[in-house]
Amino acid sequence: MNEKALAMLYSSAAKFIRVRAYSKLWNLVKKAHSADIATVLDKLFPGERKELFRVIYNNDIEKAADVVSELHPDIAADLLIQSELSSRNIVELFRLMPSDDVVSIMDSLPEELAEDIKELMSPKRTEEVESLLSYEEDTAGRIMSTDFYALDQNTTVSDAITAIQLSREIESGFYLYVINREEKLMGVISLKQLILNPPSTRLREIMNRDVISVTVDTDQEEVARQVSAYNLVAIPVVDHEGCLKGVITVDDIIDIIEEEAAEDLLKMAGVEEIDRITTSPVKSIKKRLPWLYVNLITASIVALVISLFKGTIQKYALIAAFMPITGLVGNAGIQSIAVMVRELALGKITWGNARKALFKEVSVALGNSVGLGIVVAVFGQIVTGKPIIGLILFIVLSGDMLIAAVAGTLIPIIWRAVGFDPAFGPGTFLTMLTDGFGYFLLFGLTSLFMGKFL
Amino acid sequence: MNEKALAMLYSSAAKFIRVRAYSKLWNLVKKAHSADIATVLDKLFPGERKELFRVIYNNDIEKAADVVSELHPDIAADLLIQSELSSRNIVELFRLMPSDDVVSIMDSLPEELAEDIKELMSPKRTEEVESLLSYEEDTAGRIMSTDFYALDQNTTVSDAITAIQLSREIESGFYLYVINREEKLMGVISLKQLILNPPSTRLREIMNRDVISVTVDTDQEEVARQVSAYNLVAIPVVDHEGCLKGVITVDDIIDIIEEEAAEDLLKMAGVEEIDRITTSPVKSIKKRLPWLYVNLITASIVALVISLFKGTIQKYALIAAFMPITGLVGNAGIQSIAVMVRELALGKITWGNARKALFKEVSVALGNSVGLGIVVAVFGQIVTGKPIIGLILFIVLSGDMLIAAVAGTLIPIIWRAVGFDPAFGPGTFLTMLTDGFGYFLLFGLTSLFMGKFL
Repeated sequence: MNEKALAMLYSSAAKFIRVRAYSKLWNLVKKAHSADIATVLDKLFPGERKELFRVIYNNDIEKAADVVSELHPDIAADLLIQSELSSRNIVELFRLMPSDDVVSIMDSLPEELAEDIKELMSPKRTEEVESLLSYEEDTAGRIMSTDFYALDQNTTVSDAITAIQLSREIESGFYLYVINREEKLMGVISLKQLILNPPSTRLREIMNRDVISVTVDTDQEEVARQVSAYNLVAIPVVDHEGCLKGVITVDDIIDIIEEEAAEDLLKMAGVEEIDRITTSPVKSIKKRLPWLYVNLITASIVALVISLFKGTIQKYALIAAFMPITGLVGNAGIQSIAVMVRELALGKITWGNARKALFKEVSVALGNSVGLGIVVAVFGQIVTGKPIIGLILFIVLSGDMLIAAVAGTLIPIIWRAVGFDPAFGPGTFLTMLTDGFGYFLLFGLTSLFMGKFL
Repeated sequence: MNEKALAMLYSSAAKFIRVRAYSKLWNLVKKAHSADIATVLDKLFPGERKELFRVIYNNDIEKAADVVSELHPDIAADLLIQSELSSRNIVELFRLMPSDDVVSIMDSLPEELAEDIKELMSPKRTEEVESLLSYEEDTAGRIMSTDFYALDQNTTVSDAITAIQLSREIESGFYLYVINREEKLMGVISLKQLILNPPSTRLREIMNRDVISVTVDTDQEEVARQVSAYNLVAIPVVDHEGCLKGVITVDDIIDIIEEEAAEDLLKMAGVEEIDRITTSPVKSIKKRLPWLYVNLITASIVALVISLFKGTIQKYALIAAFMPITGLVGNAGIQSIAVMVRELALGKITWGNARKALFKEVSVALGNSVGLGIVVAVFGQIVTGKPIIGLILFIVLSGDMLIAAVAGTLIPIIWRAVGFDPAFGPGTFLTMLTDGFGYFLLFGLTSLFMGKFL
């Protein structure tokens, strides 16, 4: 379904929900792809979402399970709570979903409800879920699927084909993993390789031994990096003894990449991933206000710098009109930060090239200083009629641009080195530096030359 | 190869390049995965990059071709130019690469060189490349691969298996596409489904007719959205008659998603995709300076607002110390923008929920105003000893926060509606509004109350 059709589906669904035309609503969505319904649910506001979900749930529980699987786990958890399903109903729904999806939703449910659900699940399911939940958050173990084809290395091709034919269709069914008696991962065979070989061949003779795998505790970002770098469709996950524990498929990797990218963009602005237009204002305030308080502290430091020059401003008030220059410099610094954050995210920064990066950003700052400084200086001189103002503005701009380049390059690297997220907050600290230093230069030079030239 | 091993590979390679130990360099990289070598090349600076590439090219041209395929097309094109290969050598290299990679590199080469190369290519290759180049940039046609399995719907399963066995291993070989005599796409079969069925079955009896496809002129972002939404490993591309023209595999989709995400982050900061730490300073200045000039204009408008209140500032200079408040408000507005840009990127904004989004952001602004306003007001009163300053600051902050919420929500939507990229530049216009309006309120109220309470 293309974007236009999807927009139509959304607006029709929203309309039917508003007028409570539930049978029309069901007719509308019953033939739609679960992923499209999930997209529509995602766009709807919580109250509307609940209505649509109940209609699907009441008509076709398997479809409801598919749709829940397609949702972001946080949204799925919210939806299950809102739709007021009993724990028993939720368990019934979970039975129809893959373990990895159940685990990520369980993670977002209130603990009490999660415990209730665990008690009602089948012992096998509980064991599966608990074993996945035992891995750290954001690791391969936590996101892997335990559905995969794995056969002993001594199996023949014909037996392997029979085994696959007998097993049900699974998500990660593009590869057959080959293990030994201790369940250690020995190799991998694509289904194509399988049908290429004579029936009596043993898997160990034809398997690809150079199999790229990750361990259960590998960070999900690193898993994504490898799947992306090596163009994989699925990556096997092994424990520290090398035993095959699960498989992560590329569709989950895409979700991770999209999430991490959105996170970086939002964090640069001081917003958290979970903050959506459908999030309640109170929740959003709780998420955003702390960041603004941090901002308040940095703003106070800048205010302090300005207050030091009260006398200068009183004597030559027009100089205050040039204060927005530091905003310009701040934006130039943000450009450096954005470049560095991206390079850090792509894992392209080493201490070796950090020096080169710094040198490069300083060169760019010098170039930009000339390009902007002349315009600003001429402008300042014309407006005030005083050549010395032109000179002051040029010095302020170039000096502050240097600070911006150095801070813009180093803050993200230092952030990363001390274990902070390089995307989080560097802009605020940079503008504190560029504003503070810029105002200090602007007012300091003005006060220095005052009396003599002003 | 995990991140640590990759960092080791990079630093060893960089060291060997520096001391010109080329045979050691070759020994180091010859067993490495082409994707890892590409990552190392990507981290190196252009001069070093050329050296490593020449070593690979001189020792193993097939490996060199693999590595070039793995590089970002822009970097690959730069590398080919720098390494001073003749057009004939480039054609030889291209012969070993898939058409879609060749096309994207050709796109980034200087026109003259590209023409030279086209003349030297085999007629079949030229035709392939030209047909791909005939599609618009950033469309499915431009990025699709023309290597895929397609068989007539009347083929039997056993003939299909033989056909696949006889064909060489291809990138998009997870599905077999089923076409009719006019080459129209009729259905799709996974290799697993193929081996599940009796040999004499015709493909049309077992194919999945509900095949999700895009047309040659579908935008690549929409292709990425569908592959991601429907968890596909490959998506077929058809022309307007429904004839199968190519296939786009998920690894190319990952590249698109990563690129678009990085672009959004950089554009929010006024930087272009191509601007890397390895880019020459002159090139970077050319890319960033225009944006800073736009900034200069918005800063001048703010400066004008300040200059209107020269008299007020002269009489009560301490008020200038409270100017950083607008920076705080600007950051709150950037939070709204970031949320909106993300929602727009995910295609989740309609006119229907835009109103709700606005209402939500305004509510958040009111909440944040109270949370911040009280602190700012108390602080201002204590510092100045004047209660009226506390009141003024509270009004300035809340009023400006409202502007920030409205502008932060609407600017990205309006940008999108008039066809601008919503990620590009909204922050600058927002801070112009919040600074301008904030200073206007701050100085205006001060001048209003001056004499009476100050």
